[in-house]
Amino acid sequence: MEVARTIEDARLAVRRARQAGRSVHLVPTMGALHEGHMSLIRAARAPGRFVAVSIFVNPTQFGPGEDLEKYPRPVEADLALCRSAGVDLVFMPSPEQMYPEGFATSVHVAGLTDGLCGPHRPGHFDGVATVVTKLFNIIQPDTAYFGQKDAQQAAVIRRMTEDLNLPIEIVVCPTVRERDGLALSSRNVYLSPGARRQAVCLSEALRLGERMIRAGQTDSAKVIEAMRTHITSAGPCSIDYVEIVDPRTLRPVSRLAGPCMLAVAVRIEGTRLIDNVVVE
Amino acid sequence: MEVARTIEDARLAVRRARQAGRSVHLVPTMGALHEGHMSLIRAARAPGRFVAVSIFVNPTQFGPGEDLEKYPRPVEADLALCRSAGVDLVFMPSPEQMYPEGFATSVHVAGLTDGLCGPHRPGHFDGVATVVTKLFNIIQPDTAYFGQKDAQQAAVIRRMTEDLNLPIEIVVCPTVRERDGLALSSRNVYLSPGARRQAVCLSEALRLGERMIRAGQTDSAKVIEAMRTHITSAGPCSIDYVEIVDPRTLRPVSRLAGPCMLAVAVRIEGTRLIDNVVVE
Repeated sequence: MEVARTIEDARLAVRRARQAGRSVHLVPTMGALHEGHMSLIRAARAPGRFVAVSIFVNPTQFGPGEDLEKYPRPVEADLALCRSAGVDLVFMPSPEQMYPEGFATSVHVAGLTDGLCGPHRPGHFDGVATVVTKLFNIIQPDTAYFGQKDAQQAAVIRRMTEDLNLPIEIVVCPTVRERDGLALSSRNVYLSPGARRQAVCLSEALRLGERMIRAGQTDSAKVIEAMRTHITSAGPCSIDYVEIVDPRTLRPVSRLAGPCMLAVAVRIEGTRLIDNVVVE
Repeated sequence: MEVARTIEDARLAVRRARQAGRSVHLVPTMGALHEGHMSLIRAARAPGRFVAVSIFVNPTQFGPGEDLEKYPRPVEADLALCRSAGVDLVFMPSPEQMYPEGFATSVHVAGLTDGLCGPHRPGHFDGVATVVTKLFNIIQPDTAYFGQKDAQQAAVIRRMTEDLNLPIEIVVCPTVRERDGLALSSRNVYLSPGARRQAVCLSEALRLGERMIRAGQTDSAKVIEAMRTHITSAGPCSIDYVEIVDPRTLRPVSRLAGPCMLAVAVRIEGTRLIDNVVVE
């Protein structure tokens, strides 16, 4: 496994792989790798494939007062996990590599970023779209892998990739969960034991909502109300949103007919957790 | 010469060229080709090279009230010029090809777009940066050619290309002028005979400013005043700006020491003309 800390080294490694006739596959991450990331790497791996994992805690997708400084960076553990998973290249650039002095360009995706996490994290999706565009141009993969847990991010990246004519296939893999249902997230390490127990209320609320819809409930407001009640009754928390949206446009749906996505964002003891489920 | 009207056809033509071992070179244009464009094509041409010219009157870089509808589109003449210049591929997509329903992504370059044409054409440079990013991703050229006449556009595209890590070299070619000094522009066809005679005041003002600086004048305001006086005394017009800026940052320079760029934008009988000269 090669570790590239500069854009030039990453490009060289990819060029060698291409010259050897291998296809190139990218798993972009912010590190603090967990089983969710590993499932993306496994989805990327296959004989003849060159798998690159980028590890970059991207400052431009964190807002003021967010957890940029304390975001976990267990570099050695991440590298060991990548090695054991058969990753070919880990690209770990510095912020200065990615954003040298004079950097001035941003990529914006309208519409899809208006709701859900958008209003709660101003600038976040511009930061994501911009850094992913850069990673795509540096590695030039055939496919790139993202988790369904960050559903809005995946939708934004799909849209951006298509709109900017990047010749890259976006693969979105299912959310990986703890046994009690909690969606894996690098931020789960922030949770105290009490908050960890309480945090299961997100996935429980999603399952509750899903059951109501499958049982025939077509009024979004009723489903949302039941989900909110479930979350607030689990303990003190601050709900950013509980929403039911069109999985394609991410716009709120009031009358439930076709497929929909239930999405929640909740802060427990200051830690912001998100989760979602698509009901077909 | 091949003419591709779809993104897929353009990609196919480029892929064949790559498979044949040719490097790929792009001249992005809005058509209405003149000697300025031809100089870009000549700069791109060399043995073994595959030269693509895109012709696309990009709606997103025109503001409300600008000349999108009346912008000249002499398709047959353009194709004949490309053929005679040895162009390999003309990419002529429709607006629907480039901006299908649901299109939502834009590329923004901050700072460089704050001055000069930026405030006078809100959204223009986002439209330019976005369409050029798309063209770069569709054609994936080794080098791309732009004219110094649109100096701010060239600076924005250089910045965007570097910031987004597009592996493309940007080549900026000198402004081509009529014998009397008027910079070539597809918009010159809008000029009445009287306006055409008057329009020479732009390049005259630039030469006047350049002479003053070479003669030792270091006060920007004095040079700008003389240039404005020259332009207004040539006939009725509306000056968008007369500025002296740093050629790298495009920020106004008040005390002239190092290299600088003199830039003017003037409306004559409703036609907006721009021109510039760099004084080393």
